[in-house]
Amino acid sequence: MPKSHWAWGPEPAEPELREIARLFTEHTGLGEPDAWERPVPFSPGLVPASRVPVPALPFCTADPYERAVRTYGQAYRDLIRAYRGDFANAPDLVALPRDEDEIARLLEWASGQGVAVVPRGGGTSVVGGVEARFDGPSLCLDLGRMNRVLEVDRESQAALVEAGATGPEINAGLPGGLQLRFFPQSYEFSTLGGWIATRAGGHFATLHTHIDDLVESIRASTPAGMWESRRLPGSGAGPSPDRWLLGSEGALGVITRAWVRVHRRPVHKVSVPVRFAEWVAGVAAVHDLAQSGLHPANCRLLDAREAALTSGGDGRHALLIVGFESAVHPVDAWMSRALEIVSWHGGVAGAARQDQSQDQSQDQVWKGAFTRMPYLRNAYPGLGVIAETIETAVTWDRFPALHEAVMAEGEAGTTTCRLAFAYPDGPAPYYTIIVPAEKGAELEQWDDLKRRVSETVLRMGGTITHHHAVGRDHRPFYDRQRPDPFALALKAAKTALDPQGVLNPGVLI
Amino acid sequence: MPKSHWAWGPEPAEPELREIARLFTEHTGLGEPDAWERPVPFSPGLVPASRVPVPALPFCTADPYERAVRTYGQAYRDLIRAYRGDFANAPDLVALPRDEDEIARLLEWASGQGVAVVPRGGGTSVVGGVEARFDGPSLCLDLGRMNRVLEVDRESQAALVEAGATGPEINAGLPGGLQLRFFPQSYEFSTLGGWIATRAGGHFATLHTHIDDLVESIRASTPAGMWESRRLPGSGAGPSPDRWLLGSEGALGVITRAWVRVHRRPVHKVSVPVRFAEWVAGVAAVHDLAQSGLHPANCRLLDAREAALTSGGDGRHALLIVGFESAVHPVDAWMSRALEIVSWHGGVAGAARQDQSQDQSQDQVWKGAFTRMPYLRNAYPGLGVIAETIETAVTWDRFPALHEAVMAEGEAGTTTCRLAFAYPDGPAPYYTIIVPAEKGAELEQWDDLKRRVSETVLRMGGTITHHHAVGRDHRPFYDRQRPDPFALALKAAKTALDPQGVLNPGVLI
Repeated sequence: MPKSHWAWGPEPAEPELREIARLFTEHTGLGEPDAWERPVPFSPGLVPASRVPVPALPFCTADPYERAVRTYGQAYRDLIRAYRGDFANAPDLVALPRDEDEIARLLEWASGQGVAVVPRGGGTSVVGGVEARFDGPSLCLDLGRMNRVLEVDRESQAALVEAGATGPEINAGLPGGLQLRFFPQSYEFSTLGGWIATRAGGHFATLHTHIDDLVESIRASTPAGMWESRRLPGSGAGPSPDRWLLGSEGALGVITRAWVRVHRRPVHKVSVPVRFAEWVAGVAAVHDLAQSGLHPANCRLLDAREAALTSGGDGRHALLIVGFESAVHPVDAWMSRALEIVSWHGGVAGAARQDQSQDQSQDQVWKGAFTRMPYLRNAYPGLGVIAETIETAVTWDRFPALHEAVMAEGEAGTTTCRLAFAYPDGPAPYYTIIVPAEKGAELEQWDDLKRRVSETVLRMGGTITHHHAVGRDHRPFYDRQRPDPFALALKAAKTALDPQGVLNPGVLI
Repeated sequence: MPKSHWAWGPEPAEPELREIARLFTEHTGLGEPDAWERPVPFSPGLVPASRVPVPALPFCTADPYERAVRTYGQAYRDLIRAYRGDFANAPDLVALPRDEDEIARLLEWASGQGVAVVPRGGGTSVVGGVEARFDGPSLCLDLGRMNRVLEVDRESQAALVEAGATGPEINAGLPGGLQLRFFPQSYEFSTLGGWIATRAGGHFATLHTHIDDLVESIRASTPAGMWESRRLPGSGAGPSPDRWLLGSEGALGVITRAWVRVHRRPVHKVSVPVRFAEWVAGVAAVHDLAQSGLHPANCRLLDAREAALTSGGDGRHALLIVGFESAVHPVDAWMSRALEIVSWHGGVAGAARQDQSQDQSQDQVWKGAFTRMPYLRNAYPGLGVIAETIETAVTWDRFPALHEAVMAEGEAGTTTCRLAFAYPDGPAPYYTIIVPAEKGAELEQWDDLKRRVSETVLRMGGTITHHHAVGRDHRPFYDRQRPDPFALALKAAKTALDPQGVLNPGVLI
């Protein structure tokens, strides 16, 4: 089914959306299911005329629908604009190159014409990373046709994958028994290149949390030529070239392929739900688990409200999911010790769940509640609620004060928290704030909320983003977070690689 | 005792050196103990006159001895020149600033005068990283007076440490029960700032192998101002500023302090020696351990000859040391599983050694054979042998061919190998090649050996350095290894931060 011009995934059926909306209102008291607003249907007239003649490159188009569905990412401020048929920032052109030669030709053409190039993977950015929010003509460089697993090295457990491959495409392309084991919430649509460009966070709650840790080498096309690092398990030869591209958000080059570290599919896998009467007791348990050296694959703490909304919790207990997995041995010793640690903090363990993931199709792995979540958001514009997610990371000493301050910002609606990742020196909390929408003023409302919460996060010592990236929405806060001399160096590096400044202007630099 | 003008540590006594030399010759058949050459004693006349008037900064000196002991690092090519009284490349000045203000004043003065600044920690570089091997005047910026632990955050297990603190100074400065657990062979003299600037490798054989993983934030003084990253357990806000300084080798700024992740001292610690009749069987065991998810703290494989020379091996068996450690729980389950895995490959386990490191003084931890090793090298110039160490990392699929090729390069003398670190996708082998010296032609001999082995490492798919850094000795090979557009970006970043090019010229850029 073709991608909807506004929704996560294909066009949703209205009855389903309204049922989601009804349940949501029942749980939270928010929204107006009876004042349901319908989306503006797509029509070519919604899309401004292209300002750029289509170049003589067979993989380029100015088709209005192709441009409309590539106008935005998936933030609420994207969703509501597309819902209302606002495609003012649609790219002038869309390119779907099939290989690096075509990308090189495209970059040459764009540099010569002064047309901005916005690289795009799954278009799941929630921070305005893929929107042409700048003056002048733009081209969306969609990597979707470069989606193959090119090579597998079983002995080193590594694979060479094209940047446009989505989560399911990567795992389907790997030979039986191997998986990348990287499951962000956007897994169904987001791509390897996008994960690298944004330093995405994935499956593991501890240890190898970011895609950074799974990358062995990267190849990128820049206006100054091909950037390719050597495949290495580790190196100390100068600053890591890969770490310059990780998080570069399309501003330094177009990532075309990467060698990634893959895993054998776990055959021993166990997870245990642990209930805590108090949130702070759960936090203390996560703190101790994170410093235990046990490295649980899962270690996610949901507050009572989040547990009730998403995981069938009773609304009174915080819920910690602890999980271990291994392809080579039972993990009972790890789990026993983890349960001892949580019991110090009054955690009450429920029944263990043994996942026999080798017997499951890969589809089932991600088609759980976690990756279904973005589909639920499709109901927000119709229902009249605004949702914003704020994720950060902060050292343990500062977390209680940060938590209190962020929760206070969402008082007008409902705010929930989960600890999505945990490090020895601090957690990565993830907040969802949902407030009633003021019809017609949603963008101002959302921008105001984003600004207030971002100010709070910065003031309390957090990072402006742990795994959602900077994009255009976090940019003012990112500028204050990063060291000034680093900004100077980054800008100089950008100018050397992209002298015409055509690569994703306004992002990072 | 003052540092010797040539040796590792203070001036060694000749009888001790000759005894080391005698044993070495007995084991290897190399060297001429009867043709013992004595070092040229230090005299101020060995040091060229300073070309720069001492600035009006009270922490600067042009004293010949202070300049002589800061002329070189600790490569064999450094050792032999100092032994023979060659201090042609002595810095014109030495500065010992006490704080960041003094560093800022120094950088301003140096930029204005066009005097090159070579930052120096312990001076233990084995790659020419701290030698003023360039035209024009130079100043050695010794961080030795900035050696304090400034702050400790017990809850987050992190500490703020000045860049000039050595291994023992850091651990002595941490409150009881906390340790950095970073023990490179140079631990006694090398410093936190040096480790960060060179991406040093430390204590852990798997997982957190490099100092990179232990760094929470870095502060550095640059001619363009102060660079300070936010203390964070994790972040996805653009490319990591810390990763730009990690491996920057003094070319982008002078690292002044860093927040590092510390550990509680392990109270459960066990290691087991495992013997293998065949080297390849030991390699296969390390491969499986590295992919097991067990993350042993120690997992070092010595070939039969290295085991005999350094660890009392029988000369016929390869020796694997597997170790686990924890501050919070016994590690028997981990060790049992690791020993099952090594047994698949015919490994025969010896008696387990339970370390009660909480009862040991910190001194004893590192004063083992491992950190005594550099002292043994003091005997080489007198004995007439040349030693070169080559360390790299390579994916598992390429390791057997690389190993064979490097071993062949050292045929003229004795070559030993250990796998120093192990990753899921490949090992980091460390080779020691010792050959008879041709008196008077040692530098040419060493340079030729370095060139041949480095060519081999690059050709076989390895990195030019896993944890010894690039410096001036690896530079030509590093230039071929790194992506060209990355070199362009790095150079632009350097120029933006250090427009006069005074920071460690010739390193990296």
